[in-house]
Formats: sequence, C-alpha cells, structure tokens
Amino acid sequence: MRLDETHDPALQSWVESAHEPACDFPIQNLPFGIFKRKGQKEPARGGVAIGDQIFDLAALGVRTGATLNGLAAMGRSAARKLRRELSRALSLKSRQRKRLQKYLVPIRQAELFLPVAIGDYSDFYTGIHHATNVGRLLRPDNPLLPNYKWVPIGYHGRGSSIVVSGTALRRPIGQIKPADAPAPAYAPSRRLDYEAELGFIAGTGNRLGRPIPIGTALDHVFGAVLLNDWSARDLQAWEYQPLGPFLAKSFATTISPWIVTMDALEPYRCAAFTRAADDPKPLPYLFAEDDQREGGLAIEVEMWLCTAKMKSAVHLSHGNFRDSYWTLAQLVAHQSSNGCNLQPGDLLGSGTISGTTSDSLGSLMELTLGGKQPLQLANGESRAFLDDGDEVIQRGRCAREGYATIGFGEASGRILPAVTK
Amino acid sequence: MRLDETHDPALQSWVESAHEPACDFPIQNLPFGIFKRKGQKEPARGGVAIGDQIFDLAALGVRTGATLNGLAAMGRSAARKLRRELSRALSLKSRQRKRLQKYLVPIRQAELFLPVAIGDYSDFYTGIHHATNVGRLLRPDNPLLPNYKWVPIGYHGRGSSIVVSGTALRRPIGQIKPADAPAPAYAPSRRLDYEAELGFIAGTGNRLGRPIPIGTALDHVFGAVLLNDWSARDLQAWEYQPLGPFLAKSFATTISPWIVTMDALEPYRCAAFTRAADDPKPLPYLFAEDDQREGGLAIEVEMWLCTAKMKSAVHLSHGNFRDSYWTLAQLVAHQSSNGCNLQPGDLLGSGTISGTTSDSLGSLMELTLGGKQPLQLANGESRAFLDDGDEVIQRGRCAREGYATIGFGEASGRILPAVTK
Repeated sequence: MRLDETHDPALQSWVESAHEPACDFPIQNLPFGIFKRKGQKEPARGGVAIGDQIFDLAALGVRTGATLNGLAAMGRSAARKLRRELSRALSLKSRQRKRLQKYLVPIRQAELFLPVAIGDYSDFYTGIHHATNVGRLLRPDNPLLPNYKWVPIGYHGRGSSIVVSGTALRRPIGQIKPADAPAPAYAPSRRLDYEAELGFIAGTGNRLGRPIPIGTALDHVFGAVLLNDWSARDLQAWEYQPLGPFLAKSFATTISPWIVTMDALEPYRCAAFTRAADDPKPLPYLFAEDDQREGGLAIEVEMWLCTAKMKSAVHLSHGNFRDSYWTLAQLVAHQSSNGCNLQPGDLLGSGTISGTTSDSLGSLMELTLGGKQPLQLANGESRAFLDDGDEVIQRGRCAREGYATIGFGEASGRILPAVTK
Repeated sequence: MRLDETHDPALQSWVESAHEPACDFPIQNLPFGIFKRKGQKEPARGGVAIGDQIFDLAALGVRTGATLNGLAAMGRSAARKLRRELSRALSLKSRQRKRLQKYLVPIRQAELFLPVAIGDYSDFYTGIHHATNVGRLLRPDNPLLPNYKWVPIGYHGRGSSIVVSGTALRRPIGQIKPADAPAPAYAPSRRLDYEAELGFIAGTGNRLGRPIPIGTALDHVFGAVLLNDWSARDLQAWEYQPLGPFLAKSFATTISPWIVTMDALEPYRCAAFTRAADDPKPLPYLFAEDDQREGGLAIEVEMWLCTAKMKSAVHLSHGNFRDSYWTLAQLVAHQSSNGCNLQPGDLLGSGTISGTTSDSLGSLMELTLGGKQPLQLANGESRAFLDDGDEVIQRGRCAREGYATIGFGEASGRILPAVTK
C-alpha cells in the first residue's frame, strides 16, 4: 500500500455533507467525473465529488474539457499530485475555503456524463464462482473449461452503447430460438438480465507491440467505476457459438459517473484470490510476488431492484471483487501480452462478481438458476428475469477497519419496453 | 443501381496516370483518404486518389481535418454531391485544370494514415465457404453450426490495434497449449495467419435503441476498405472458449488507406448469394426484395505473399465478396437490430472471403488444411503459416463488362520477430 496524508481517516473537509455517516464521497475518496449544471448553457467539465457536492476542477486551474481522457493519460503520478492538491484545498485546514466555496455545485443540481470517451472496451470473466455457476447450468459435471485457471478469459465488448447511470434502456429485440422450436423468431428478449461488475479505466497507454509487464501494470490504470453488463440470455444462447456474445450484450452497458482513482483504492488492497492447492500457478507473465500479496481489491458491489410497483428498492445481492480469480494487474498484463495497445480511457470490465453464498450472486441467471426458480420479492411480486419498468441499481463500497469508508455512487438503469415497430 | 455521370466508363481525367490500364484509381473511383506530404511539417488532411496522384480536397474548399469521420457523418447524399463535384473538377472537360493542378500530390511522396478514427470494430463471419472449411477441420461431419444460416454471426474486435497498410507488425506472444502438452506456455505464435476480408466504414449513425431497417441500411455506410484480420491460430485454439477470439486477433488488423465509397461501388452490385433450396429464408428484419436482387457486391479480393527471400510477391488466392452468405445491408440491419448504435467511422469486417476452389481460400488455415499441407512456393520455400520477414499484400478490384475497373490499392504488412524480452 502506498498511503499518504490523503488517506488519513481523521482528515475532515469543510464541506460538511462529506461527514454524513453513509456518505460515499468523504474527503478520502475524491472521485473524478464530468458534469454541468442542469438547465444551464455551460460546457461539461471535470469535477470531484465531495459529500453531496461537486467541486469544479477549474478551482485549481485544471481544465479537463468534456472528458477525463487527458487527465487519465497524464498517468498515476500526475493523478496523485492532483489528489493531494484537492485534499488540501477541501480539508478543514484549508485557508482558501472562502475563495473555493463558489466552485461547489450540488450533485442534485448537476447533470453527469460519461467520465471518459471510451475507446475500446474489453470484458473479462474473472469471477470464478460466477463462471462455475453459469458453467454448471450448461455442463453440470464439468462447469469450468480447461483454460479458465490459465487464461484470464475475456472478450471485446461494444463501446458505443456504454451509457452513464440513470440512462433508461430499451429492452432489446433479437433472434430467439427456444430449444423446442424449429426456427428462431425476432422478438423482444424474455430473459433480460444484469451482471454486477466493476470497470477499470485505463490511464497511460502502451505502444502497439510492447506488452505491459505485470510489475508496472497498475501504473496504466486511472481508476474504477461500477459496471452493469446488461445481458439478453435468450439472444446469447442462440448467437454465441462460435465467436462469443455479440448482440446479447451490445444494446447497453451502464457505468457509474464517478471514477474512484487507484490512489483512493490503495487502503483496500488485499491479497490476491487464494488458489486451490491443485490450481496451476500463474504463468510468469501473470505472476509477481507483490501482486499476489496485495494485488487484490476489496470492493463490495451490491445490486438492488426497484420494480414499477415498489416505493423503494430491495436488495438482491452483494459480492466482492476480492473474490476475483485474477487481479487487475493480471488483466492489464494479459490484455497487452500479445502487444495489444491500451489507450487512455479504455475500459476493462471485471466480469460478473459473485461469491459462494446465495446472497452473493451477481446476476439473475445465477439467483434464479437460469429462470427456473424465480425470486420471490417482499411485495409479492416475483422475477425470473427483468420486467419492463424494473430499475436495477448498483452500488459499491470499500470499507476497512481503521480507514474511511468510501463509495462509488450508483449505476442505475430502468428497462423501457421494446420498440416493436 | 443508382448510376450517374460519374460512372460513365468513357469519362476521362486530365490526370493522365488515371488512364493506365492497371490503374486502381481511374476517375470513376475517387476513393477518399487522409494524407500529408512526406517530410513536410503540415497537417494530415483529406484527399482523393486519382491515377498515381492525390487530389487535396482543399481544392474544393473541403477541410476534413485529420480524419474522414466528419465527411462520413454527413451521409450518402453529401458524399454523392462531393463525388460529382470531384468528378467534374478532375474530368478532361474541366476548365479549372490550371487552378487545380497545384492541389495534386504524388501518392509516392505522401504519407497515408488511417482514414477514419475507428470507434467500434465488429467482425462478421459471412464467408460460408470459409466457415465450412474451418468448421470441417474441427467437426468433419457437421462443419456449420445450427445458427449459421439464421444469424449473421459476428463478434466485437479490437479498435486500438487497427493499423494502416504498410505498418509492420510484431509476431504476437501468447498462451499456447499443444494438445499433447500438460500445460500452456507463453511463447511466440507458431501459427500466424492472415484473413482476407473487406471492411465497411459506417457513415451516418443511428440513435441507441433505434434499429436500422434493412431498407435504409446502406444509407448508413460510407464505403469499403481492404481488411486483413491477422490471426494467431495457436493462441485462438486455447483461449476462445467460451467467449470467442480475443488476443488471437487483437495484436493487429491492417486496413487499406483508401475508402472506396458506396457510390463508386454502385455498378458492381449484384444479386445476393443464392441460398441452397433447403436453406431458411432470412427472417423479416433481414429480408428486403431489393437487397436480395442487388444487395450483393462483386468485389474481388486477392492475397499475395512476399517472403524475405523473394524479389516480388507471389499470388496466393483470390475470393469474391459476392460469395458472402449475408449482404452488407443484412450486416448493418443485424448489428443494430437490438438497438445497438453505429457511429460514423465504425468498422464492420466481412469475415474471411473464401470461395469453393483451391485458389480462392482466404487464409493459410484453409490453404494448408490447418498447417498439415504446407504451401510449396515457386522459389522452393514452403509455408504452413507465416514466417518472420514475410509480407502479406492484399489487393481488391471491381470489374464489370461495360464499366470501368476500379481498385482498392493495397493493404500490406510485414511480420517482425516477436519481442521476447
């Protein structure tokens, strides 16, 4: 862990809402986003969340423009320097409070945008419990394929349809072929699901042809967001052989607006997932002592559901990225191991984060055993998959004894009916 | 076909090299690209190829900037209008010849760039002969999967590693597990291959959630380029289950620098692929009478090989996109059928274009039966897969009785040795 004064749990801000007990954005967090004031003709620009406010980076003379790609490209040490400046400016001890007050905008009065222009989006499959759960539905005796414990399995996702939290999404239409039907039909998905993931935003890139060694992999990551990889299971089942998921996923992916930086995450680093005794050791390009010791990230990810009939959301599950079979550094090293270039703003998804208990399953596919055992909700409704009008809300949090608790805000999306003409 | 005076085969240009018999760029073509003069400090900008020259679009007051995305976004009618202006300006009858002469730059003195900033790249699998050939290597009795004739199979590709013709590429390193080995090793690919494809560049996009109907699908395409989907077969075999190709493809994809517009391609439209009598009819969202009648594109794609020991390249194969099982309009309609949004500059790959004869196979995988029957080259060398120093050169052409023959230029790349430390 590389801790400094910005992580001091005793640190307080002159922004009072930052001290509320359940606040996602205490002064120890300082996540970056892109905002503008609602209803104002003004350019979108960078800010940090503090309490229930956004602090405009212009206060420190930082002009990001309408995306944070430039800031991400500057690398870890620049991000760390800016974090320290922000921490000082917003701390209770700051002498600039009076001057800075006018750079606060209440989050409720702001419109939030995608924080970066995402070039490439890759989605991994690092949740071994998820991979086992889903594999078991298809292959009860042999749920994990032989490559799983060797290769950080991933695939390329669609960048254009990544949307920021709060964007409603249309139920997708696509080819569906029930097992007993002679032919597929083009119809609205009846097995619409979510997947609880994290997304990691690339910082400094690498040159094409030059892999990133695992030892410096985290220098190429700017920070993390919540990610909901909406999935149409019926489209996926019919289309995915032999080239993988395509239209089953490309209709929408939701991310949260606030990038929690790698520096903010330092206190919550933990040991990598403990492999079973007979699991293979990672190949050398995926192995570093440091990474095994503290390359894990203890980030809890919760899913909530609010149906059209509900007044408030109900809790569905919570998983933790510390259960990821592969560390973030391993994902970055693997992604670039063939020479593939990362560019600032690229997005790497974790894959669905599921644990081993029934309340830690990160998709309805798992929670309902492929739809066979619908969820019984407290208000009497039940769900095998998502209905129109359902809102799925993802939340994330890092907590550790002796440190501040920091949050990710929300990644939410409500399902609109399919457009059938 | 929507032909106009720009397609007149009798039309001649005052640029004399445009009349050379084997010239790819007669006045009937007018493909767009991005260039600057070599060794000059000047901005990259848009031009059209004519004969052995580039005609700077600034001559007509068109300032594209360093990519053609803006031009692509303007749509088919704007592109057609500009094409007519260019055709008039460059025709032998033009009265502006003297003024325009100074806007010519010889192609040999120019540096060519990626013509568009590519947002998302999808790669399809429309070559039924290729899919059958490759499938037969894996499943001799059942080469095509049940979804193939219903779904235009595709997957998301990597955008960041798309390079323009002439860019050398590093042999990728990755996990390889021979069938008889107990464990994989991280090593340079020994089964490096190419794939002969076409790429289609999106023009006007669609809104997220709003599919593009097949009837207007071609209004969303700006033009076509050659595309070589370099593939590491050994990496692919080990990694691709269950989510599809990932690092086996993401180390490099080469495209040609000149975008042959949809208008230039009008004379070479042809009937869609003739389905076998027992093949299913396309589902309604993939079916249009017009598209069946003239949605095919007769574009020949050739592959050539020049090893380090050769003085000139040898011909490997030639296929034709008219053999594609799915039309371009079907690809666009399918890609957006779930509401996924296309953006100007997005790239859609055709998949490997192979025919039924032994000289029409668009990959070494097919030409050598998975490496089992190496190619015997005229100079005494042989190749199961590509060696370091090999250059693969792709060419493309449209020819039709009564019309000019137009070409695509080249998409070439030479293999550099792997960087192993």
